[in-house]
Order: sequence, then structure tokens, then C-alpha cells
Amino acid sequence: MVQATALPRNEAGIGTALGILKQQFGDRLQTGATIREQHGHTTTWITNQSPDAVVFPHTTQEVAEIVKTCAAHKVPVIAFGTGTSLEGHVNAPAGGVSVDLTQMNKVLAVHAEDLDCVVQPGVTREDLNTHLRDQGLFFPIDPGANASLGGMAATRASGTNAVRYGTMRDNVLSLEAVMPDGQIIRTGNRAKKSSAGYDLARLLIGAEGTLGIITELTLRLHGIPEAISSARCSFPTVDAACRAVMMTIQYGVPVARIELLDELSVKAANAYSGLTLPETPLLLLEFHGSDASAAEQAEIFGQIAEEFGGTDFAATSTTEERNKLWQARHDMYWASLQLRPGAKGISTDVCVPISRLAEAVGAAQDKAAELDLLAPIVGHVGDGNFHTLPLIDMDDAEEVRRADEFVGWLNDLAISMEGTCTGEHGIGQGKRPYLEKELGQATHYMAAIKAALDPDNIMNPGKILTDHT
Amino acid sequence: MVQATALPRNEAGIGTALGILKQQFGDRLQTGATIREQHGHTTTWITNQSPDAVVFPHTTQEVAEIVKTCAAHKVPVIAFGTGTSLEGHVNAPAGGVSVDLTQMNKVLAVHAEDLDCVVQPGVTREDLNTHLRDQGLFFPIDPGANASLGGMAATRASGTNAVRYGTMRDNVLSLEAVMPDGQIIRTGNRAKKSSAGYDLARLLIGAEGTLGIITELTLRLHGIPEAISSARCSFPTVDAACRAVMMTIQYGVPVARIELLDELSVKAANAYSGLTLPETPLLLLEFHGSDASAAEQAEIFGQIAEEFGGTDFAATSTTEERNKLWQARHDMYWASLQLRPGAKGISTDVCVPISRLAEAVGAAQDKAAELDLLAPIVGHVGDGNFHTLPLIDMDDAEEVRRADEFVGWLNDLAISMEGTCTGEHGIGQGKRPYLEKELGQATHYMAAIKAALDPDNIMNPGKILTDHT
Repeated sequence: MVQATALPRNEAGIGTALGILKQQFGDRLQTGATIREQHGHTTTWITNQSPDAVVFPHTTQEVAEIVKTCAAHKVPVIAFGTGTSLEGHVNAPAGGVSVDLTQMNKVLAVHAEDLDCVVQPGVTREDLNTHLRDQGLFFPIDPGANASLGGMAATRASGTNAVRYGTMRDNVLSLEAVMPDGQIIRTGNRAKKSSAGYDLARLLIGAEGTLGIITELTLRLHGIPEAISSARCSFPTVDAACRAVMMTIQYGVPVARIELLDELSVKAANAYSGLTLPETPLLLLEFHGSDASAAEQAEIFGQIAEEFGGTDFAATSTTEERNKLWQARHDMYWASLQLRPGAKGISTDVCVPISRLAEAVGAAQDKAAELDLLAPIVGHVGDGNFHTLPLIDMDDAEEVRRADEFVGWLNDLAISMEGTCTGEHGIGQGKRPYLEKELGQATHYMAAIKAALDPDNIMNPGKILTDHT
Repeated sequence: MVQATALPRNEAGIGTALGILKQQFGDRLQTGATIREQHGHTTTWITNQSPDAVVFPHTTQEVAEIVKTCAAHKVPVIAFGTGTSLEGHVNAPAGGVSVDLTQMNKVLAVHAEDLDCVVQPGVTREDLNTHLRDQGLFFPIDPGANASLGGMAATRASGTNAVRYGTMRDNVLSLEAVMPDGQIIRTGNRAKKSSAGYDLARLLIGAEGTLGIITELTLRLHGIPEAISSARCSFPTVDAACRAVMMTIQYGVPVARIELLDELSVKAANAYSGLTLPETPLLLLEFHGSDASAAEQAEIFGQIAEEFGGTDFAATSTTEERNKLWQARHDMYWASLQLRPGAKGISTDVCVPISRLAEAVGAAQDKAAELDLLAPIVGHVGDGNFHTLPLIDMDDAEEVRRADEFVGWLNDLAISMEGTCTGEHGIGQGKRPYLEKELGQATHYMAAIKAALDPDNIMNPGKILTDHT
């Protein structure tokens, strides 16, 4: 495992705060070792740093009371959704209280006529879409995991259909949040656009719980398109596939999803999901629109694919076929792990300008080969975002070192290409050194904002910024 | 005129800073009364508050030097683009230096393959689109005025086609800015999405120059659609027109523009632009897409319009017809003024959830009638944003009072409908009391951010926040 740095603990404050919270929350405050560990980091190779207690509030007012108690005693407060983040966001390096928001899981309102809804932060994206389906509406952001919407906002998540619908940044109208002093604010209202003051919603989105706890979200919704169709197409090389993606985006085809699986990923998907795809690089697409427009998009893509040597182009419009393909895509993490049973998968998350995509993916493949790493690649390539997943034997220190070298090298490559070390996973603990490399001087102003809003550094300490630990 | 409050002046500091800047900038620092007045507020009814000097930097480094000098002597710095803002943003209530960015007007790079470009802040949206046309690209944000892109970002501007393409918030990838201490930062890179730290770009967008001066913008571009067509349709009432808009949006028709002109505005347009439109409420639309998809959108809209009593539906696809209609729309401000020559037009800017649009527009018409105000209405109604333009005889104090009552009443109405007092114009000086009404407690955290980044309150003082004046 990669050791996450521990931070100084305020033992006295923690003891006092836990006593007060126990009185108030009774059985809704838990301190058992198992539950505490479950509320630390449990994915990837970052070590688990458990909180001292886990509390389960039911209302915004209760969250505010928890934060006020913790603020009074300078105790860390860490918001917890589903724990699916990949960069140690929910770890408690200085101990403190994990605020588990899963019991704040109500859809409070759906305004179908305004294409928006109001939800509590513990509602997951699948729950929301189940709730919305009968009204012909959906919430598009899909990071793969069935994450909570509060967590998705906190990490500025996106996923497969960001290329068409944007990220959490674009699909949150406003937030209610509990600030580090325990005050409750609302960043905006239900207007579709606003020029009213500083954009506090966008500041909280992606702040990873370091500036406040999101307690309610007003989200943009979309009508379920009249037609949804999928297509897949195989390519001789990753380079050819990436060039087809570039052309599709430049041509302005409003694809809803355009995903790359490299050769290794296709092999994994065939084995895991019982498919018989040609074992060469694959693009998987989805088109949304009217019947005519979805068909037109598929046709244009087919022509572009042909230009770049695409073969086995297959358009599917039955729900069953479509679901099978996308289920395989969603299962890629598990499928990849089966390429090397027992190994740990370490996901990277770089995002580059699309003109550099083919070069970046090719270089990543070459570097993995050079370092003798088995590293399948999938990507939300319409945005220039791709994930390599080195499969690592964590007992082999030398291999762990090589994986670490690979991750660092890839982040540096993306930054050198005017891209970012994180397209959608966030900084957390794992990528803090790269944030500074990527944004330099700008991180000082982030730290100034953090210090102004959270002078005692109680909100999710040890994340995003290095200045504050 | 409505008196803008003056703030205490730091005479000694201003004198010293101007001396230093004069040495450095020579003739590029101007102190003549006329040029100073041109760099204060010159639109609407807010009084002009001129800066003490206007300086014309050519580079980011020069902007940084200006800010450092002003920071050292605690002198206000006010960024200036084209001066087309409507809420007193460029006024200098405490004096200081206007930084005119119009000579930083270069398009630095166009990355056609990535659909982005890098521009200096003084480039206007028309200049950019002229520059891009040959490459088949365009920048969609169109606030009407030929504003500078730096200014548009600073006020989080949008306009007619935000319903399809979003606002400045959505179309800026990253910014370079000079911060209040004179340091230069870059908020991000050219990746299409990123989860790397606090979203400083979104914080600066809409901050109206109070947190830093934008010195470079990386913007998202779009391919010029294969087909662009327009349509217009007359309705028996504003209510019917608004209901047709609601249905169009709910149906998911991806209209590029959907604009409302009320009866009074249509009369003004006929008179000013030599049109012969039926003098009843009008919707003006634009469709972007492939030939087939644009035609399909027009057809669906036609069916919806018919349901709501729309008549005289006319689709136009020749460039000439289209330009004539949209030119008339863009000239509405001047056309409206001709309804009452000599009067001043005072633009409101509320934005409400679209389900409340018909009610809000109807109530605004009734209230204007009750207050005996001549107030034509136009609106970016796809977003629920509309502008009433009371035409006021500024020499009639009683009428000015009624106009003031109307503006306040309308802002309160929008806030009561879960909307905002400003969809796209910003807060500036004029709407500061309403920001607090709208966002309450949240404004304290805005003030905390302002104080942290600009402790001496030198960046555009007296705007957005009341706490800081």
C-alpha cells in the first residue's frame, strides 16, 4: 500500500466532541472498528485512515449541529457518500468525525416543467434516475459507480456522457451547504442562469468537502431522448481509433458517449462479459436524439470510422443489445482485474486536449510496456480523458515502485501537453503534488480561500492542498 | 440620475501611484476629463464616477506592474473593456486607475482541432468571430453589445443563444489573471474537463473584476452548423407565447435561440427596422444542426406553436432574411428608445424558472401599467430571462421614483419565484441590495473570500458586495 501521511491529532478536542455528539445522536454515532474502517479509504492503494467516529445525520440542521460541535473543538469533519472515490478523499489523516450522508437520501422535489429537481446529498445517481424514469426525465452524469450525488458534486465527477451533457459543474443549478462555522447557506436558486455574485456553487463543486458539506442539490434534468442507439467499431490501432474520435468531435456530431477500449481491455471484456468482440482497439458510442437525428449521427460516425480503417461497425438500437454492451463497459474495472487475479488496479485519470489524445494514449501504452506493467486502458475519449489501470502485485515492492513511476510519469506527460492530472477523480490525498505542478501559483490563492473560510482547517484536512496540512 | 454612493478616497496614495505609473506608461496614462468620464459608467441611470486616470497596458506583465503599484499605495484598480455594462461596474466610487484593456486585443492562438482558442481580454466577440469564420468555427456567446471577452467573462454574460450553448461560465476553459497582489495566475489548462482543485476560473467569472483582472482567456469554440435557420411566430398573448416556449424546452427541442418580443417591442421594431410584423407578441427562433435536424426542429416548433394559437409562422433559411430579423432583434434597445424620444431606457434583468415565466412577464406588464410606465419587454425566454425597459423622463422626479419602485418590485418578484434579480447583467453597484435579499447568508462568505484575496479592497471597490464599502 502507499502510505498516506498522518497529521497531528487533537486528542482532547476529539474526545470532547465525540462525547457531545454521542449524547445527541445516540446509536446514530458509531465508533466500532469495522464501521470506522469502512468510512476510511477502501479503494486503490492508498492506506486506510479511519475516522474516530461515524455519525448519520437526517437533516441539514443536524449536519450544522455536528459541524458546530466539531468547529468549537477543532475536530476534523469528513463528509462521506458511498466511499467510491479513488484518491483517498474520505480518509481521516488527523482523525475526526465522518459524516455519513446516506440517510439523507430523499428526492425532495421534481419540477418536470422546469427540468430540475432538488435532492438530498445521499441520493445516488441510480436512485435518482429510477425516481425520474416515469416522468420521462433523466440525470445524465454517470461516473460508473453508483455514487451519491453529494459526493459526485464534491469531486466534480463526470463519466461516459460528459462529452454531450457536461460534468457535475454544468448540471448543478445551486447547492445548500453547511459551512465550516456551521452556518447554512444556499448558493443560488432555480433560475437557469444567474450573474448574481461569486459562484459559490462552482467553488463547492470540486472542493472535495474542504470548504463545506453539501446538504442539498438542485440539479438540471434532461428529457429522455426519443431515440437512444449505440454503435461499436473496431480499429487497427489505438491511434486510428483516437483519430476517428477527433474527427467526430470536430465534425460536431453530438455524440452522447464515445468510449475507447484498448486491445487489452477488449480482451478483458470478452472474457468477463462473454462477448466476442474483435480483439483490437474498440470505440463504443451512444447517440441521443430524435429517430432521424440519432440515425443521422450513426451514419456520419460510420463514414468517419471507415476513413480511419474502422471495421465491424455495428449499430444497435434494441435496448437489450445496447444494455449488454454498456454493461460490459461499466464492468470494465472488474473485467480488467480478472486479467491478473489477485492484483490491485490503480486508476490514472489524465485528460488532454483532444489533438494530443492519440499521442498520449500511445505513449502511455509504450511506457507501461517499458516498465513491464500490465495496464489496460479505457477512456472517455470525446473529452480527451482516459484511464490506464496498471494491475499491480502489491506484495512486490519493486513492481509497486514501477507503478508509482508510471503514474507520476503519466501525470507529468498530461501536464506537459496542456492537460490535467485529473479529468474527473479529483486530487484527494494522492494527487496533491501534481496539483501544484499543474497550477503553480494558483494553488496559493486556493489556500488563501481555504484559510479564510476554514481557519482551523477542520473540513476534510489533508486533501487537495499541501499548504494546509 | 440615480446617485451612486461615493467612497472615501486615498488622495495621497492616488497621487503617488499616478506619478509612478506616468513615468512608466507616459502617454499611455491619460488623465483628461473627457477620457476619464468615458471610463466611468455611461449607460443607464447610474451617475458617472470617473477614475483619476486611465492606463492602456499592452501585456499581462504591464497589468501586473500596474496592480503592484496600486497595491503598494492602496489605490483602486478598475478593469475596463468596452464600457457596455449596465450596472455601474466600471465606476470609480473611490477614484483610482481604470485599466483599459482594449489594446490587449490579440487572438493568440486558435486550436481548430481542439475547438478552443486563446485570446487577450480586449478582443471583442465580433472580432473573434470574424477571425474564426474562415476556419468554420464560432464563439456562441452573444450579449447583444459588441463587448470585450474579458468583460463578458467578468460579468458572466450570456444572451440570445445561451439556451443552447450556455453562458460565459460554460464556455471558458481557463483564465490567466492578475490577482490583487499583482501575481499572475493561470486557473487551468486546455483539457475539456478537470477535477484539479478549486475552480478559480468560475470564481473569477462573474466576480466583476473584484478578485483580479482577467488578462487571457482560453475559450471553447463550436463548429459553424451545417444549417442555420430562423423562424418567427406571432401569438395572441404573452401568456400563449410563454407557454409555447415552455413546451418547446420541455420537449427537448435544441433551439439555438428563442426570443420573446412583447406587443410594444414588436411595434418598436416595425417602426425602427421597417418591418411589417403583426403587432402582437412574437417569438423569434433560430435552429442549428444538420439540414435534416434544423428542419425537424422547425417543424416540431411549428406544431407546438399552433397548439398555443401561434399564427403567421414563417421559417426562413436564407441568410438575408435571417440577418434582417436578428438585426431587428439586436436593434431593439435603440428601437425601444424611439418609442419615447429623449427618454432613458432602464433595463431590468430578472430570470425565473421557466414554469413561472408567463406569470412573471404578465405581472411585469400589469405592474408597469399600474405605475403608468412605458416598458417594452424582450426576453431570452428559453432560459426564463427577460428584460423590461421602462422609458423614463429623467427630469421628472416622480416618474424616476416610479421606475425605481418598478425595478425593485420586479427584482423582489423574481426572488420570490425562486429566480434571480440578474440573469446576465451582474450586480455592479445597482443591484447590491438585491444580492443580499437573494442569497442572504451566502454573501458573508463572498465577503470573506474578497477580504482574503484583496485585503485592502483595491480591486473594483464598491461593486457586488455591500460589506466591503
